[in-house]
Amino acid sequence: MKSICLIIGAGAGIGGHVGKRFAREGYHVVLCRRSDADGLETLVKEIEGDGGSVEGRLLNIVDENAIEGLVLDIEKNTGPIEVVVHNIGAQIGNRRLTDTPLKTFELGWRLSCFSLFRLAYAVLPIMAERGKGTLLVTSSTASRRGNAGQHSHAAAMGGRRMLCQSLNAEFASQNVHVAHIIIDGAVDAPDTLGKMLGTEAFERLRQEIGREDGLMLPEHIADTYFHIAHQHRSVWTHELDLRSFSDEAWWNHAVSVKF
Amino acid sequence: MKSICLIIGAGAGIGGHVGKRFAREGYHVVLCRRSDADGLETLVKEIEGDGGSVEGRLLNIVDENAIEGLVLDIEKNTGPIEVVVHNIGAQIGNRRLTDTPLKTFELGWRLSCFSLFRLAYAVLPIMAERGKGTLLVTSSTASRRGNAGQHSHAAAMGGRRMLCQSLNAEFASQNVHVAHIIIDGAVDAPDTLGKMLGTEAFERLRQEIGREDGLMLPEHIADTYFHIAHQHRSVWTHELDLRSFSDEAWWNHAVSVKF
Amino acid sequence: MKSICLIIGAGAGIGGHVGKRFAREGYHVVLCRRSDADGLETLVKEIEGDGGSVEGRLLNIVDENAIEGLVLDIEKNTGPIEVVVHNIGAQIGNRRLTDTPLKTFELGWRLSCFSLFRLAYAVLPIMAERGKGTLLVTSSTASRRGNAGQHSHAAAMGGRRMLCQSLNAEFASQNVHVAHIIIDGAVDAPDTLGKMLGTEAFERLRQEIGREDGLMLPEHIADTYFHIAHQHRSVWTHELDLRSFSDEAWWNHAVSVKF
Amino acid sequence: MKSICLIIGAGAGIGGHVGKRFAREGYHVVLCRRSDADGLETLVKEIEGDGGSVEGRLLNIVDENAIEGLVLDIEKNTGPIEVVVHNIGAQIGNRRLTDTPLKTFELGWRLSCFSLFRLAYAVLPIMAERGKGTLLVTSSTASRRGNAGQHSHAAAMGGRRMLCQSLNAEFASQNVHVAHIIIDGAVDAPDTLGKMLGTEAFERLRQEIGREDGLMLPEHIADTYFHIAHQHRSVWTHELDLRSFSDEAWWNHAVSVKF
Repeated sequence: MKSICLIIGAGAGIGGHVGKRFAREGYHVVLCRRSDADGLETLVKEIEGDGGSVEGRLLNIVDENAIEGLVLDIEKNTGPIEVVVHNIGAQIGNRRLTDTPLKTFELGWRLSCFSLFRLAYAVLPIMAERGKGTLLVTSSTASRRGNAGQHSHAAAMGGRRMLCQSLNAEFASQNVHVAHIIIDGAVDAPDTLGKMLGTEAFERLRQEIGREDGLMLPEHIADTYFHIAHQHRSVWTHELDLRSFSDEAWWNHAVSVKF
Repeated sequence: MKSICLIIGAGAGIGGHVGKRFAREGYHVVLCRRSDADGLETLVKEIEGDGGSVEGRLLNIVDENAIEGLVLDIEKNTGPIEVVVHNIGAQIGNRRLTDTPLKTFELGWRLSCFSLFRLAYAVLPIMAERGKGTLLVTSSTASRRGNAGQHSHAAAMGGRRMLCQSLNAEFASQNVHVAHIIIDGAVDAPDTLGKMLGTEAFERLRQEIGREDGLMLPEHIADTYFHIAHQHRSVWTHELDLRSFSDEAWWNHAVSVKF
Repeated sequence: MKSICLIIGAGAGIGGHVGKRFAREGYHVVLCRRSDADGLETLVKEIEGDGGSVEGRLLNIVDENAIEGLVLDIEKNTGPIEVVVHNIGAQIGNRRLTDTPLKTFELGWRLSCFSLFRLAYAVLPIMAERGKGTLLVTSSTASRRGNAGQHSHAAAMGGRRMLCQSLNAEFASQNVHVAHIIIDGAVDAPDTLGKMLGTEAFERLRQEIGREDGLMLPEHIADTYFHIAHQHRSVWTHELDLRSFSDEAWWNHAVSVKF
Repeated sequence: MKSICLIIGAGAGIGGHVGKRFAREGYHVVLCRRSDADGLETLVKEIEGDGGSVEGRLLNIVDENAIEGLVLDIEKNTGPIEVVVHNIGAQIGNRRLTDTPLKTFELGWRLSCFSLFRLAYAVLPIMAERGKGTLLVTSSTASRRGNAGQHSHAAAMGGRRMLCQSLNAEFASQNVHVAHIIIDGAVDAPDTLGKMLGTEAFERLRQEIGREDGLMLPEHIADTYFHIAHQHRSVWTHELDLRSFSDEAWWNHAVSVKF
C-alpha cells in the first residue's frame, strides 16, 4: 500500500506541485481545493499521466466538519495519512483598517488559522498514536511581521506560526514532525497571485521581475517540502524561509507583492 | 475637561492598577470588566477615595456590538478617548490538543485577538482623525513562542502581536501610538492567576517565589504603561518586555506559571 | 552622597542628554568621550549651569585598561556606580564587503561589542556584590537584522544583543538590571549622524524629514532611559525599541539613514 | 573537472559528514581542521575508500593569512570553489562572567565570527564575479538567544548571524547563496561535544538521551546541508533550524547540553 500525502489547498501553485512531487516519489496523493473542478481534474490527469496515484476532492474547509470528515474518510477508506500539507492562504491584498470589515477579519482567521487547528486536531492525534507523521504548513512573511494593510492576514498568520510551535512542542517527541515554511516572496502561482493581481498585471510582473526565476517557482518549492518531510528524525527542521535570489529578505525591505 | 483613559479588562491586576495610575495623573478613567460588579465597585470607590475621576461598566466583550457601542457611547457622551488599554487575556492553563475543543480555540481567539481588532476598528480611525491617541496592549510570552498545551493561547496571542504591528504600520504616522507590552511572567493578580491556580496554590506561589517581588507587581507595571503612553512622539516604543528580576527570560527556560 | 551615573560615549546626542537628565534628577554624572575636549567642556558647563553635579573625562575605550581603570578609579575615589550607560556606536555608513577591510571589521567589534564586554566584566561583578545596579546599552536596528553594506556594524551589534541577553541571564537575579535599547531610526545627533552625513546633508535631512520630531530627539530618548533605570525590580524591561512616529519599523522597510 | 567543496572545520561530526556526502555526490572535497593529523588522515582515507575525491589540510584559522591563503591556493591550483562550509564553533562550556577572561572572549570572536568574515571576504567576491557560489554556515542556538555562562559564545554567534544576513543582503542578487543553519541541540560529535564533556560523560549522554537518535546524527545533518546547497535559486533558504524530535526547541527550555 502506498503512503498517503494529503494536500489541503491544491491549485496550480505550491499545492499542486507538491502533489506532483510526492506522487512521483511513490505516494498516493489526495488533492483538495475549494472550487474549480476543471483545474482539479487537469491536475489529477497530469499526475496520472506521469504514472502517479492521485485523487481530487472539492472541499470548502470553512464548512463544518469538512476537514474532520475528510481526514476520517481517508483514514478509514484509503489508508493512513503519512504526510499532510496545509497550503491555505487568505491574502486579500492591502486594505486599510476601515476597509477590513469584521467579517473579513473573521474569515481570514477561519481560512488561515482555524483551519490549521481543525486539521491538526483531526489528524495529529492519529499520527501520534501510530508514532509517525508529518505536517507541513505553508506560511508567509506576515507570520513574522505585520505591515500596513495586512491586518487580517498578519493576525491570521501570526496565530498560525505560534500554533505550529505549540503543536511541535506537544507532538515532536511522539515522532510527529510539524514544519512551518515561510514563503517570503511572490510565487509564480496563477491561481492565487495571478487572480489577485489580475492576468495582465501578473504577466507584466512575470516579465519584469520574473523571467525564469524572479518569482518563486513552485516546482522547486516542492523539492524543499519533500526534503523536509524526509529528514531523519534526529535532525528535524521546524522553521525555514524560502525566497528568490533576486529578492530581498523581509527584514531588508517591503514591496507590495510580498505578503 | 479631563482626558479619558478607557481600560478594557479592569480587575485587581494590571487593568485596575493602570486605572488607578491614570486617575492619579488626572485622567477620567473608564473601567470595563465582564463580571464581578462588587469587585468593580470596590475599585471605583478606591479610585474615587483617592480623588480620582472614574466610572465602571460591566461588559461582555464577545457580545455583538459591545465594544463598538462602548466606544461610541464614551466618545459621544463623555468625551474623546485619549488612551485605551486592551487588557484581555484568555489563558486557560496547559491543555493537550485533544483537550482543546474547537469551541475553546475559537473563544480564545474571540477574547484575545478578535476583541483587539474590534476595539482598534472602532477607536483608531477616530483617534487618527483627531490626530492623537494611544492604544496599549497587554500581551504575553505566548505572543513570541508557542509551547506545549498552549495551542489556543499561543495562536490568539501570536495573532495579537502581528495585529499590533500592522496597526502600528498604518497608524503611527497619523500620530496614533500602538504599543505591544509583553508580560513575561506571573503577575500578582488575584482575579486571573489567582483564579486559575486556586487560592491555595496562588498563596503558596506568592510565598515561595513571590515574597515581595518575585511575582510581577501590577502597581509597578502601571508605571511603565503610563510612561509608554507619554513618550514624545519622536521616540515611541512599539514593543517591550517586562519580567521580574528573579525570573528568567522566556528564551532561557519555561516554567508552568509562564504563559 | 549622590548616586553615580557613568556614561561611556557622551556627545551632543543620546549620551549627553541622558547625562543631563540623570544630573537633573540628582545623580552625579561622569561623562566620557573619546575626543573633542571643547564639546565635553561645554556639556559639563551646561549641566553645572543647571545646578547639576558632573565631571568629564576624555578616554579612548579601545586602549588597554581604559575602561577597567575608569571603573576602578570612580569606584575608589568618587563612589559606587549605580547606573552605567554604554553608548558607543561604530557606524561607518554602508560599505560593500570589499570596502570593509579586516581592520575595519575588527575595530567595529572592539568599539561596539568588546568594549561592552570589558565594561560589563569590570563593573557588573561589583554591582552584583553590592546587590544593586543598572547597565543601559544603546543599540541599533542592526542588532536585529543584517543589511547590505552593514557587515561590520551588524556583526558587532548582533554580538552586543546576545551579550546583553547572556549578561541579563547571569545578573538579573543578583538585582543587576541590564537593558538593551534599540534605537530604530536616525537620532538628531550632530556629533554622530551629523558627522557621518556631513553638515549640509544633515541639515537637509533635518529640514525634510525632521522638522521638530521626524528625527528622534535625544532629550526625549533620555526620558525612557531614566524610566528603565528606575523600574521596580519585579517589572524590569530587558529590551525595547524606540522610533519616531513618522518612521516605519525596521521590519517594514529600510532607508539609508536607518542603521 | 569536479566541483569543489571546501570545508573549514572538518572533524568527526558535521564537517566530516558533510564532506563525505559532497564527495559521494561527485564533488572534490577539501577538508581543513586545526589539529589531529591522524583524524584528518582517517577521514581522507575513508572518503577515498568510498571512491571520493578528497584532500586534507591542517590549518589554524586564527593565523594571519591562513584562510585567505587557503582560498587563493585552491582557486589557483585546484579549481573554483563552488561550495564552502564554515563549521567552526567556539563553545567552551558555561562560564560565569568572572571566569571569562578578555582573552577568552576575544578568541571566541576570532574563531567564530571573525573567521567567517575573513572567509567571506576572501571567497564571496570571487564567487560573485563568477556569478555562482554557496556559503553554508553552521551556527547554534546562541545565535538566537544569550544564556547564563554563554557570554563569549553568544556574542560571537550573535555577530555571526547578523553577518550572514548582511552577506546575504549583498550577495544573493549576484547568485551567491548564504545560509545560516542553526544546530539547536547536541550533535553526536566525538571531536567537539565528546571532548568538551569528556569521554565518559559523552558516552553516558549517548546512552541516556541518545540511543540511536536523541543526539543529532551528523550524517543526517549532511543531507540537509546538501539539499540547501542545491536549492533552485528562485527558492533559497537563508535560515533554518535543526533539532532532534526528542528535544525541545530553544524557545521552550534550556538544558546544559544546548548551546
